[in-house]
Amino acid sequence: MGKVATADALRFMTECLKAVGTAAKAAEQQAELLLQADKLGHPSHGMNRLEYYVNDIMKGACQPNNQPKILKESASTAWVDADNVLGATASHFAMDIAIKKAKETGIGWVTVKGSNHNGMAGFWAKKASDKGLIGMAFTNTSPLLAPTRSKKAALGTNPISVVAPGSNGETLYVDMATTAVSVGKIEIQRRKGEPLPNGWAQDPDGNNTTDAELAFKTGCLMPLGGAEHTSGYKGYGLAAMVELFCGISSGSKYGHHIRSWSHSGDGGPADLGHCFMALDPECFAPGFGDRLAESMQHWRQLEPADPSLPVLAPGDKEWEAERQSEESGTVSYVKQQLEASAALAQKLKVTPMTVL
Amino acid sequence: MGKVATADALRFMTECLKAVGTAAKAAEQQAELLLQADKLGHPSHGMNRLEYYVNDIMKGACQPNNQPKILKESASTAWVDADNVLGATASHFAMDIAIKKAKETGIGWVTVKGSNHNGMAGFWAKKASDKGLIGMAFTNTSPLLAPTRSKKAALGTNPISVVAPGSNGETLYVDMATTAVSVGKIEIQRRKGEPLPNGWAQDPDGNNTTDAELAFKTGCLMPLGGAEHTSGYKGYGLAAMVELFCGISSGSKYGHHIRSWSHSGDGGPADLGHCFMALDPECFAPGFGDRLAESMQHWRQLEPADPSLPVLAPGDKEWEAERQSEESGTVSYVKQQLEASAALAQKLKVTPMTVL
Repeated sequence: MGKVATADALRFMTECLKAVGTAAKAAEQQAELLLQADKLGHPSHGMNRLEYYVNDIMKGACQPNNQPKILKESASTAWVDADNVLGATASHFAMDIAIKKAKETGIGWVTVKGSNHNGMAGFWAKKASDKGLIGMAFTNTSPLLAPTRSKKAALGTNPISVVAPGSNGETLYVDMATTAVSVGKIEIQRRKGEPLPNGWAQDPDGNNTTDAELAFKTGCLMPLGGAEHTSGYKGYGLAAMVELFCGISSGSKYGHHIRSWSHSGDGGPADLGHCFMALDPECFAPGFGDRLAESMQHWRQLEPADPSLPVLAPGDKEWEAERQSEESGTVSYVKQQLEASAALAQKLKVTPMTVL
Repeated sequence: MGKVATADALRFMTECLKAVGTAAKAAEQQAELLLQADKLGHPSHGMNRLEYYVNDIMKGACQPNNQPKILKESASTAWVDADNVLGATASHFAMDIAIKKAKETGIGWVTVKGSNHNGMAGFWAKKASDKGLIGMAFTNTSPLLAPTRSKKAALGTNPISVVAPGSNGETLYVDMATTAVSVGKIEIQRRKGEPLPNGWAQDPDGNNTTDAELAFKTGCLMPLGGAEHTSGYKGYGLAAMVELFCGISSGSKYGHHIRSWSHSGDGGPADLGHCFMALDPECFAPGFGDRLAESMQHWRQLEPADPSLPVLAPGDKEWEAERQSEESGTVSYVKQQLEASAALAQKLKVTPMTVL
């Protein structure tokens, strides 16, 4: 692991995106999205993704300087064409609409087609929460989830996120793939040479595997819940719900029609679908923030099975990681990431990051 | 198992509720809700629940002839006080509002306080789907879910449901507790004298248990995903999300404040919270129904790991059960249910059902 000053990481990612032709604002917004994932302790959605975006732009598969537009609108909904811009540009555009409509009518629900990977879903839900609203964000992704009983993947890791503002500075933060785990977690076990728990991944015959190497090659994750007897069909149902809100509603690519996202940027535009919701809790009972904060406090005070592992409220891990990052003014990266970033800097003729 | 004519089961449940003073329409609506669960193959939410409602009414814990009312309203939202009526009365009232608002503004989002158990969540989401809309329904319940790492339960089984209408008569139907399984599934293993899979339930020390008897006594279910290493915190996060939409938004009882629901009707009003959403897919890309139907067809045609277990689309099990019930004009009940119903008929002086 090595530490980099937060401002330097942001500068580096912004410059890389500008180096391949992205206008300043779009580059900054995408870099902020990635940086926030690194700060919250989710490096799989952070700088780790930068080269994918760069490659997509270089190959013309993503056109970062296009302009998203509203195709259809009602008092509380909008249908947006992202016009193949970066995920951050499309998602700011769409969530801003949802927030505006929530302030006017109580709720805004916006679907987006023609987009690209938009990072950590929770980033978008939190954008609404920062305005005093309940935020939700969903996105489809390339196929990786095997429907219960299937040998093959047919849905993405399709995340669900919900973020809500409580009293006393509390923020409920849920951001979860609807697969049991991400591919990143399988990579970690593989690197460590350790077996997988049951319920994470399948072998090519559609059976549970604990072999991290085989699971990584197969690329077929089990839905949240794992096997059928532990209710994996619920995770499958949730992934289907996310696709319903994203590709099936917005008319982007969906499910098995989405390209597999290669490192090289080949395969044409991703044409991903997203969905954003903002809801004003002021429309309902007074005291929302107090009840939320009281719940989160109650959960933390529950007696843990293992005294060394206290019960957490959803988001506690993320806020602690962010606090540490802000206190030190740095973000930490694994060695492979720092090496890859140094190589990318050279390739794009961008000033490399200074490892502290 | 014994079969009863569908009309006779509906008649019996309606008359039982009327016998304890429920007005005809409210009694019929609650009976229809229970009957539909039996028809779809979810007997835990069917006639099995009738005696709970009857007891609650007899003890005055539920007041079926009160009138739900809107406390606050915006263009796309409403906050409803159920005034302690039966769950079906409250839920028809609230989902009707959500549907009306969805037709006017694209989406309706309604939260309800002061309610009682409203049966199968999917019944309410389907009410919207039957009008061409995407429907969602959520409810909180008595505490049964142990937050990850906790020895004790602090959230309910808090179901999520989403139902949507596709082309060619397809209906996507997801209705799932956010616990790994329902208490009913543990009861079944207990009756069979068989162990539980890992990831279903906890012992009093907060550890995983496979002992069905102990799990039943402890009453502490694991969230969807099971233990922490198989991402049980995701199910915990989903249960928290449902509570956010239900009790925390509506100001009903929430989480650990909800009474444990005893068979006797003691403990005062349940004061449960629900949440209903209706969304008009016409607000987004044309072809919604076709994309949904094509997805469902694709999932069914995936090659299964075990050729004797075909891949299902979410809802296939339910629609097949309903088809069989409608074809035969009957519903099936286990022996214990038929005996309990006969005893209830005698107690309430209602004509018993005829077992065919």
